Amino acid sequence: MMVKVSRKAHFNAAHRLYRKDWSYEKNDEIFGKCNNPNFHGHNYELIVSVTGEIDQETGYVIDMKVLKDIIKDEVEDAFDHKNLNVEVPEFSTLNPTAENIAVVIYNKIKPKLEASLVLEITLYETPRNFVTYTGN
Amino acid sequence: MMVKVSRKAHFNAAHRLYRKDWSYEKNDEIFGKCNNPNFHGHNYELIVSVTGEIDQETGYVIDMKVLKDIIKDEVEDAFDHKNLNVEVPEFSTLNPTAENIAVVIYNKIKPKLEASLVLEITLYETPRNFVTYTGN
Amino acid sequence: MMVKVSRKAHFNAAHRLYRKDWSYEKNDEIFGKCNNPNFHGHNYELIVSVTGEIDQETGYVIDMKVLKDIIKDEVEDAFDHKNLNVEVPEFSTLNPTAENIAVVIYNKIKPKLEASLVLEITLYETPRNFVTYTGN
Amino acid sequence: MMVKVSRKAHFNAAHRLYRKDWSYEKNDEIFGKCNNPNFHGHNYELIVSVTGEIDQETGYVIDMKVLKDIIKDEVEDAFDHKNLNVEVPEFSTLNPTAENIAVVIYNKIKPKLEASLVLEITLYETPRNFVTYTGN
Amino acid sequence: MMVKVSRKAHFNAAHRLYRKDWSYEKNDEIFGKCNNPNFHGHNYELIVSVTGEIDQETGYVIDMKVLKDIIKDEVEDAFDHKNLNVEVPEFSTLNPTAENIAVVIYNKIKPKLEASLVLEITLYETPRNFVTYTGN
Amino acid sequence: MMVKVSRKAHFNAAHRLYRKDWSYEKNDEIFGKCNNPNFHGHNYELIVSVTGEIDQETGYVIDMKVLKDIIKDEVEDAFDHKNLNVEVPEFSTLNPTAENIAVVIYNKIKPKLEASLVLEITLYETPRNFVTYTGN
Repeated sequence: MMVKVSRKAHFNAAHRLYRKDWSYEKNDEIFGKCNNPNFHGHNYELIVSVTGEIDQETGYVIDMKVLKDIIKDEVEDAFDHKNLNVEVPEFSTLNPTAENIAVVIYNKIKPKLEASLVLEITLYETPRNFVTYTGN
Repeated sequence: MMVKVSRKAHFNAAHRLYRKDWSYEKNDEIFGKCNNPNFHGHNYELIVSVTGEIDQETGYVIDMKVLKDIIKDEVEDAFDHKNLNVEVPEFSTLNPTAENIAVVIYNKIKPKLEASLVLEITLYETPRNFVTYTGN
Repeated sequence: MMVKVSRKAHFNAAHRLYRKDWSYEKNDEIFGKCNNPNFHGHNYELIVSVTGEIDQETGYVIDMKVLKDIIKDEVEDAFDHKNLNVEVPEFSTLNPTAENIAVVIYNKIKPKLEASLVLEITLYETPRNFVTYTGN
Repeated sequence: MMVKVSRKAHFNAAHRLYRKDWSYEKNDEIFGKCNNPNFHGHNYELIVSVTGEIDQETGYVIDMKVLKDIIKDEVEDAFDHKNLNVEVPEFSTLNPTAENIAVVIYNKIKPKLEASLVLEITLYETPRNFVTYTGN
Repeated sequence: MMVKVSRKAHFNAAHRLYRKDWSYEKNDEIFGKCNNPNFHGHNYELIVSVTGEIDQETGYVIDMKVLKDIIKDEVEDAFDHKNLNVEVPEFSTLNPTAENIAVVIYNKIKPKLEASLVLEITLYETPRNFVTYTGN
Repeated sequence: MMVKVSRKAHFNAAHRLYRKDWSYEKNDEIFGKCNNPNFHGHNYELIVSVTGEIDQETGYVIDMKVLKDIIKDEVEDAFDHKNLNVEVPEFSTLNPTAENIAVVIYNKIKPKLEASLVLEITLYETPRNFVTYTGN
């Protein structure tokens, strides 16, 4: 019996959408007010979903406390109250769009899980905009 | 890297569930109070999800501003503060159930997207009732 | 010890904002698309709050089941799946704005409560627009 | 045209996570404070999703009133305001983790639906922890 | 400048509504299924609001980290994953209705705050039922 | 008949909590990670509430479209996608705590309303932290 278990978490961060190799004008044309050089920010809401067999001993797919700790170590401690562009190494050259942040979170959490578990990352940049990445 | 990006929107509308080719009694039996000839209404909440490759230039699957404008043109301007049965041509003979509204929205938005993008429509008729259509 | 106890409920209805004694043009100018003669509609979310002393016997200000039944009788059965302008007598000449609906609900529920209880009505017309009436 | 229709419901219950065949110490190690022998409890939020063809006559995949009644009979009446470990036979020997509760709900609702319909159960144990089961 | 600052928290607990000095029949008549002797439970959502002057040095009414710690010490550590009737001394003879729980929380937090600060407790027993207590 | 009408809005912004006249160490001690010199950010949710008499002509306390436009001009256009410390003049020397932001918003909106209307500002810095200011 395969079950998907999901855990919500959140972090607050500043970011700016732009490419260093583009002119300010081109960045402005593509990213609009998200290209503000003084940064803006979001309360990111994160859903980490793990799919696997129910362990017949415990009735768990994964112990939520374990999953909560992985999220804290890999995401909250690394991103919360940070400037993503300036302080988070993964975004030193990668544009911190919601899509790219979700991929980075996936790549940080996946190696911490047993290989048989399937991972899905949903990231809300605002209550109206969100993205989902499943590693494909 | 395939990512699903989602955008929430909403519109308010009146509707009535019934078939013109059925008697009032049969409509009443099947649709109950949703068959009120004077109409009732809903705040429809809409989630439009688009799945595609992340553009390596921009970090976007699709520019959310572009998606927001498509939703405004195809759904909000067409349905908001309208009587679906009386004023929206798609429902002149099609019963405006949540299922059928989701299919109509899918069919309006799909041609506005690049052909490679996969579309999913989720429509909340009330906070407790919602439907999802993926074009299959 | 005075405590305010609150109960959420909801109903779906169609309505139109207009005054019969105004021209269509004047109604249109004041009420815009809310004046659509074919009606539009909402999922109204209602919070009924009752403030009073905690009964030392039961630990209740009011039995929530009693309050739930009053809301059902006075509001849900009267307004749900209805056209407010056409089918609800209170709005035969009263414009069904959120403000006026809240006052009507207050006036319907107040006489059903013990006189010592203080009543407050909060009505969400949409998730973004809501009103509160306390009988003053 | 396949559409997934979803209905939200909820129930409140007490439970305790533990295995009768384990020592208290082992239960405590694995289940932590969820192993409290005096029980704790949750407001479980449930989403029952049914996927099938839109009936061309009615525009429905399934009549929501029918689905609502199935949920009431099979889940709400059986679980609401109950102690899952003590009063719900399915958990007399099965640990009532969110995973196992979702599987039990699936197995109770599936036989009540037409065989062609696909069922998915999502169960929120808290607003931050939830599970999804699709019968596989 | 007086500002009200609010912090949300939550805890899960089991409880039973009844009076030891009443017969089972009388408890059943008054408290219905909430009188289940095997207990049921809730995810309680708590809003603690503190009103006071903005400190001109810091721009804070109260440091949210301080308020968060008070809530953790006085409420979460005391109530979370507990059986309120059996394990929380305040309810050994006091019926744990939402009203009474809010009063108990108020009385636990008030002495931890500076005397000039005004306290308000809002407690959601379910998403549809909640109470507010301000110490009057 | 006095009614309070409320409108929700939102804006995203970066900020940093600190005082220029304090040492980094003192700022760090008081503001912790909110003092990150590279900034962090939030999705601020705003509720603007206006209390007044219902206009007997229109049934409105205030036309929501008018209120929506005031919020757009005074708050969204001024704060959205901005760095509050760097780009918003009101915070050039004022620490942008939630309390101070609420006061600034109040002071910007109040003069745009008729003098008889009572204004209340509620600002969510995160879903768990929010403040309310009523001009007193």
